[in-house]
Amino acid sequence: MCEAIVFVVKDGEKEVIMENVVTLHPEGEKILLTDLFGEQRLITAKIERVDLVGHEIFLRKQD
Amino acid sequence: MCEAIVFVVKDGEKEVIMENVVTLHPEGEKILLTDLFGEQRLITAKIERVDLVGHEIFLRKQD
Repeated sequence: MCEAIVFVVKDGEKEVIMENVVTLHPEGEKILLTDLFGEQRLITAKIERVDLVGHEIFLRKQD
Repeated sequence: MCEAIVFVVKDGEKEVIMENVVTLHPEGEKILLTDLFGEQRLITAKIERVDLVGHEIFLRKQD
């Protein structure tokens, strides 16, 4: 499967905020994440990098 | 594998702009796409939706 781990990067530190993520949907200043189980999180951040083969997505918090 | 097809949506029409995409990297108003073969395209657009399981990424052109 192709789910990804989503990290938030802030002040040079990366933190896992959601695993098994299947969709990302930017909405203005926020990003709606949905995982394999239908759980959702709405995060105030921007997309920094999406690595589909590495299964990693990096978001950047606004300071 | 988890590569995706990237579409650009403009005026309600969707157009394939790159296949076998492995990374997306937003850079200001642009997005750098890289495919499995190392080919790159720099597109002026915003990310509309990333569907990791459906292997589809939708970008939106600025009007």
